[in-house]
Amino acid sequence: MRQLRTCLLAFLLLVPVMVAAQDLMDGEYPGLETGKMWTFDVPPRQYWAQRYNFSPSDQWLEHVRLSAVRYGGGCSSSFVSGEGLVMTNHHCARSCIESATRPGEDFLTNGFYAAKREDERVCQGLFLDQLQAITDVTERVSRAAAPTADAKTAATQRTKVMREIEDECNKTEADAACQVVTMYRGGQYKLYRFHRFKDIRLVFAPEGQIAFFGGDPDNFTYPRWNLDVSFVRAYVNGKPAETPHHFTWSRNGSREGDLTFVIGNPGSTGRLNTMSQLEYLRDAQYPAQLDQLHRMIEAFKALGAADTVRAKALRNTIFGLENTQKAIGGYQSGLLDPRLMARKRAWEGEFRGKVNADATLRRQYGRVWQTVSEIQARRKAIDVRRRYHSGNAYGSRLLNTALATVRYGAETAKPDAERLPAYQEANKAAFERNLFGNAPIDVVQEQALLTAFLTAMQREVPATDPVLKAYLQGRTPAAAAEAMVKGATLTTGDARKALATGGAAGIAGSTDPFIAVARVIDPLDRALVKEVTDLNDREAQANEQIARAFLAVYGSNASPDATFSLRISDGEIRRYPMNGTVAAPYTTFGGLYERASAFGGQPPFDLPPRWRERRDSLTMDTPFNGAGTNDIIGGNSGSPVINRDAEVIGLIFDGNIEMLPNRFLFTERVARSVWVDSRAITHALRRVYDAHALVDELERRGATPAM
Amino acid sequence: MRQLRTCLLAFLLLVPVMVAAQDLMDGEYPGLETGKMWTFDVPPRQYWAQRYNFSPSDQWLEHVRLSAVRYGGGCSSSFVSGEGLVMTNHHCARSCIESATRPGEDFLTNGFYAAKREDERVCQGLFLDQLQAITDVTERVSRAAAPTADAKTAATQRTKVMREIEDECNKTEADAACQVVTMYRGGQYKLYRFHRFKDIRLVFAPEGQIAFFGGDPDNFTYPRWNLDVSFVRAYVNGKPAETPHHFTWSRNGSREGDLTFVIGNPGSTGRLNTMSQLEYLRDAQYPAQLDQLHRMIEAFKALGAADTVRAKALRNTIFGLENTQKAIGGYQSGLLDPRLMARKRAWEGEFRGKVNADATLRRQYGRVWQTVSEIQARRKAIDVRRRYHSGNAYGSRLLNTALATVRYGAETAKPDAERLPAYQEANKAAFERNLFGNAPIDVVQEQALLTAFLTAMQREVPATDPVLKAYLQGRTPAAAAEAMVKGATLTTGDARKALATGGAAGIAGSTDPFIAVARVIDPLDRALVKEVTDLNDREAQANEQIARAFLAVYGSNASPDATFSLRISDGEIRRYPMNGTVAAPYTTFGGLYERASAFGGQPPFDLPPRWRERRDSLTMDTPFNGAGTNDIIGGNSGSPVINRDAEVIGLIFDGNIEMLPNRFLFTERVARSVWVDSRAITHALRRVYDAHALVDELERRGATPAM
Repeated sequence: MRQLRTCLLAFLLLVPVMVAAQDLMDGEYPGLETGKMWTFDVPPRQYWAQRYNFSPSDQWLEHVRLSAVRYGGGCSSSFVSGEGLVMTNHHCARSCIESATRPGEDFLTNGFYAAKREDERVCQGLFLDQLQAITDVTERVSRAAAPTADAKTAATQRTKVMREIEDECNKTEADAACQVVTMYRGGQYKLYRFHRFKDIRLVFAPEGQIAFFGGDPDNFTYPRWNLDVSFVRAYVNGKPAETPHHFTWSRNGSREGDLTFVIGNPGSTGRLNTMSQLEYLRDAQYPAQLDQLHRMIEAFKALGAADTVRAKALRNTIFGLENTQKAIGGYQSGLLDPRLMARKRAWEGEFRGKVNADATLRRQYGRVWQTVSEIQARRKAIDVRRRYHSGNAYGSRLLNTALATVRYGAETAKPDAERLPAYQEANKAAFERNLFGNAPIDVVQEQALLTAFLTAMQREVPATDPVLKAYLQGRTPAAAAEAMVKGATLTTGDARKALATGGAAGIAGSTDPFIAVARVIDPLDRALVKEVTDLNDREAQANEQIARAFLAVYGSNASPDATFSLRISDGEIRRYPMNGTVAAPYTTFGGLYERASAFGGQPPFDLPPRWRERRDSLTMDTPFNGAGTNDIIGGNSGSPVINRDAEVIGLIFDGNIEMLPNRFLFTERVARSVWVDSRAITHALRRVYDAHALVDELERRGATPAM
Repeated sequence: MRQLRTCLLAFLLLVPVMVAAQDLMDGEYPGLETGKMWTFDVPPRQYWAQRYNFSPSDQWLEHVRLSAVRYGGGCSSSFVSGEGLVMTNHHCARSCIESATRPGEDFLTNGFYAAKREDERVCQGLFLDQLQAITDVTERVSRAAAPTADAKTAATQRTKVMREIEDECNKTEADAACQVVTMYRGGQYKLYRFHRFKDIRLVFAPEGQIAFFGGDPDNFTYPRWNLDVSFVRAYVNGKPAETPHHFTWSRNGSREGDLTFVIGNPGSTGRLNTMSQLEYLRDAQYPAQLDQLHRMIEAFKALGAADTVRAKALRNTIFGLENTQKAIGGYQSGLLDPRLMARKRAWEGEFRGKVNADATLRRQYGRVWQTVSEIQARRKAIDVRRRYHSGNAYGSRLLNTALATVRYGAETAKPDAERLPAYQEANKAAFERNLFGNAPIDVVQEQALLTAFLTAMQREVPATDPVLKAYLQGRTPAAAAEAMVKGATLTTGDARKALATGGAAGIAGSTDPFIAVARVIDPLDRALVKEVTDLNDREAQANEQIARAFLAVYGSNASPDATFSLRISDGEIRRYPMNGTVAAPYTTFGGLYERASAFGGQPPFDLPPRWRERRDSLTMDTPFNGAGTNDIIGGNSGSPVINRDAEVIGLIFDGNIEMLPNRFLFTERVARSVWVDSRAITHALRRVYDAHALVDELERRGATPAM
């Protein structure tokens, strides 16, 4: 309301050097176009020294590498005691927690704590991978593909030799787990040799609600108040593993301005994507996905509005779709930002300029951007048909199973290698469970989704489209969907099995409305799948060429795209401009209670009983979550955040919404990684959970090896 | 980090009806293109009944009108006891607080509380206006302007009769204060008769820092934690005024979903602006203002970077400019929103279509949009010259005083009515104090600002521009600014007075570099000022015609643009989507301490000593600030927020940043008014300030008249 207030504020002066640096370059550090997901074999020593005056020893790097452990199939984690104690996110440990739960218990809801070793519960199927060594195998992999081979053959040849290298490596040591990691989209191949821990047991998990406080609305955002932590322990020969390499717990926590490192396994980024690839995502793929999500959400909401029981059942489905919408909307927002795209365009121009300035590089790679661009144009040309000449009609099970029924006989009659992947022997059992199973089909939902799908289809394809004609037969989308669902005969697995295994004549003669449409789709979809597979192979080959050009021009000092392999990412704890004001670098326990109270304690802003009961024993100013400029993405969940002394100051569990565009266009002005502060973990463990033995173990310092 | 979480969340079900309504129309209620700032003579009974099932009695409306009081020259306030107690914002009471402060005291910093009547301190010059009656005087005012008169003459004639009407009214009653209020930009004229209270005394003010916690960064934003409240008391004949009409204090506060009303005096909106007027702001005026702000801020920052003492002195200047940047950026963001502009365009199209569909209206008003558009085009054509052929060079005092010196002799020689306004006798004393005063001129700052100004000018005007040539004389902007400031001779008031009063020959012969430039600017600026005045008169006339067309087509049931006259605005307490998640309808005392703590208690997030000392005596879940969908703008500061029973549940002090576009394009999906919750006021008064007598007075209920 005030326009030109001139009060006594010292805000800007808090971080004078930092602000000056931000002014110079709009908050961005130069030369980080591909981000900061560094590999341990090529640590960016010069950059770290220049930017932070930080020059770690080889021992520091080795210690950090061995203290981090890849967690199961999709997360990160780290050793945090000398006795095999491992810290990760609650949301990473969900299946471990479930597998440790016995009848009558509900650890996901109520939490779990084993005060004594003997109470720790085995997590079925969980393993942890500790990275022992990285070896460059680029030459051997590259040599495997004949220079004259087409894209598909070359890929097969390379895959074969990669499996050979892994097999050889796996034999060198008991518990070795080896993986050839593709770097720079094929520009380099690195053999990652892990030590695998296979006996993992649950030590501690909080209540699901405090781990995911704020639920889907708060997901991907900051400020945040999530105790998204759990502890497991690695056992060897029935005893806690000896883990001399582990992160010690910071005594004093962190403060704004501190240098921080995140150690973990970012899953996938696309920062070497060309402009044409980004434009394809921006102009074709994401708009189509967002349109489908919007239509499905509207359909589900309309169903819910008409039926309160159904509304309750659909709530989580809607939230899930809205969360996907949030994520894709976030990626898209970066691609729609003209400033970010102009920067990317300038960078690509410079890169291509350097390639063209060198006669050899120009000859080898000069045309590849054009190739990629042509592939995108082709994708765009067939995109609409791919969406509608397909067995996927907004997830309609009646259509999906109809197409599978139509194809079943023909596919299973072929030699295994020639079948569509789903029908190959390796996948057939799961496929048949789904196709021939008698899980009930929700016809009301089928009709609603099919109506939404046909409404979109009618808008996008010409009236002469053979599939559209087969669907509509002159009816409106709503009338067609209603009639088709009412007329559907294959609503049970038994009925589908009879038709699928009954021979081609039965299929050809079926009057089921979904079978009738599926017969029209079948050949069209086959042709499209074939073309898309070919485009994928050609694009992978082009990507690899761009990667080679990139390495030739810039060397391998730039951060390679994420590949769910171990990375170290630097950053700083830093406030950032948000919503017209400034977001604080920390939240506190006090803020958790504010957010719960401000929403009247209603889900997803409700607090578990223990958190309500123990409130008065908490120190409200204790930091809860924190935010920094480290470069992370999905797969980094559970990564430790450490300081210069390799001490734990936090535990990554998310990024803010401003970070979503980083998938393609890395910036650090407002993008923030989000973590649980180490002080929140120990404070809650002692004051809410009485987990004193666990905190004592975390705070023990004698076992740390000299660095 | 999670993509498709499907946890058990009941969030959407909290407000099922509300959400369903939002889905129907993207959060907007139809028919509110001009907003919800209703006048008391045309309450929107039908709309209130339909939307909220709310049908107030005439007594309710009269009681509410008489309980609200316009505060001084720019704020709103209300009676909150039967003994003349008045509630407004702290930021509205700043000059009152200053005037009540005696040597050795610092009430602005430390706060003030008079526990007894005799300790209440007089606020010099403050008055409060209570609205007694509204009379339509449109016919008399309209008749005053001869139908054939040009724009300027008509305006003068109307102003004359408006002053006559006010003078007549002022004589009807002691303490009457009458004002003819222009509604719908001239479509209607209403006589507002107020009762003026002139003896106002300060009762309570908190510390400035808790009233403006978060300072300029948090200004215009929400969530928020400001105790922006103060209390004064109206006296009559040396005794507290008897105010049977006053708002009683809500017993239980409010909750999400409640219907609320804001009663106050919104200052100015532009919702009847045509598309061409909005486009002019969007494409010309705002970009130019933002460019100047950016360049000035950069210049000040560079000065500060070179000199830490200067940096400290400039901090508030920079904050002030950044706050203006935030406000204009907010207005501009609405104009840049294609969705909002498309809605406006559609609405204007419908309006013009209705005008054109009626032969009479078409003849009277059909061409006026074209006239307005031509005026904007002319403004655009002369805009650059207006910025640079002017005595205002980013606030350079050397240039400004040079132009005044050049003009002084010529202007003062003319008859009073023919002079430029500043030189007329009514304004001359203040003008001479400034021109002939010896306040020192900061030459370092002059040089920096002039460099920034000339850099912008060189980019915008052709090299042949006579003023640019006079400035640069072939030099770079930096060199020209340096040489001019070094060569300036008129740095004292005495020197300026000698030249200004020394006759035309002295001016013509002066070699002072600023005088030399001012001589070139003088005739150019005179011509431009004349043209702009003419454009303003013509645009005012066109605006009035559009207003008449609007009233002819839509009647006077739509909300007229704000005019700093009493309005009542309905709304609801409602969470809203923000930053990827949802903003709560309330903040709490706990959140205040979080924000202070998360920034390490550094300004502007520091707490006054009393707030640190009394922390443990506070109930942290008490609501602090709240947010609703009421329609407000500057001038509404200090407005009470009341419920259906006319009880105080809050005190308006700001809007969120999403509300800034409402200046032109009203929406309520994410725009929120922001208030101090009534519970925060009484809780803080008792627990932090021991102001028990004041709270007892607020909570007394016997005096309320029956409604």
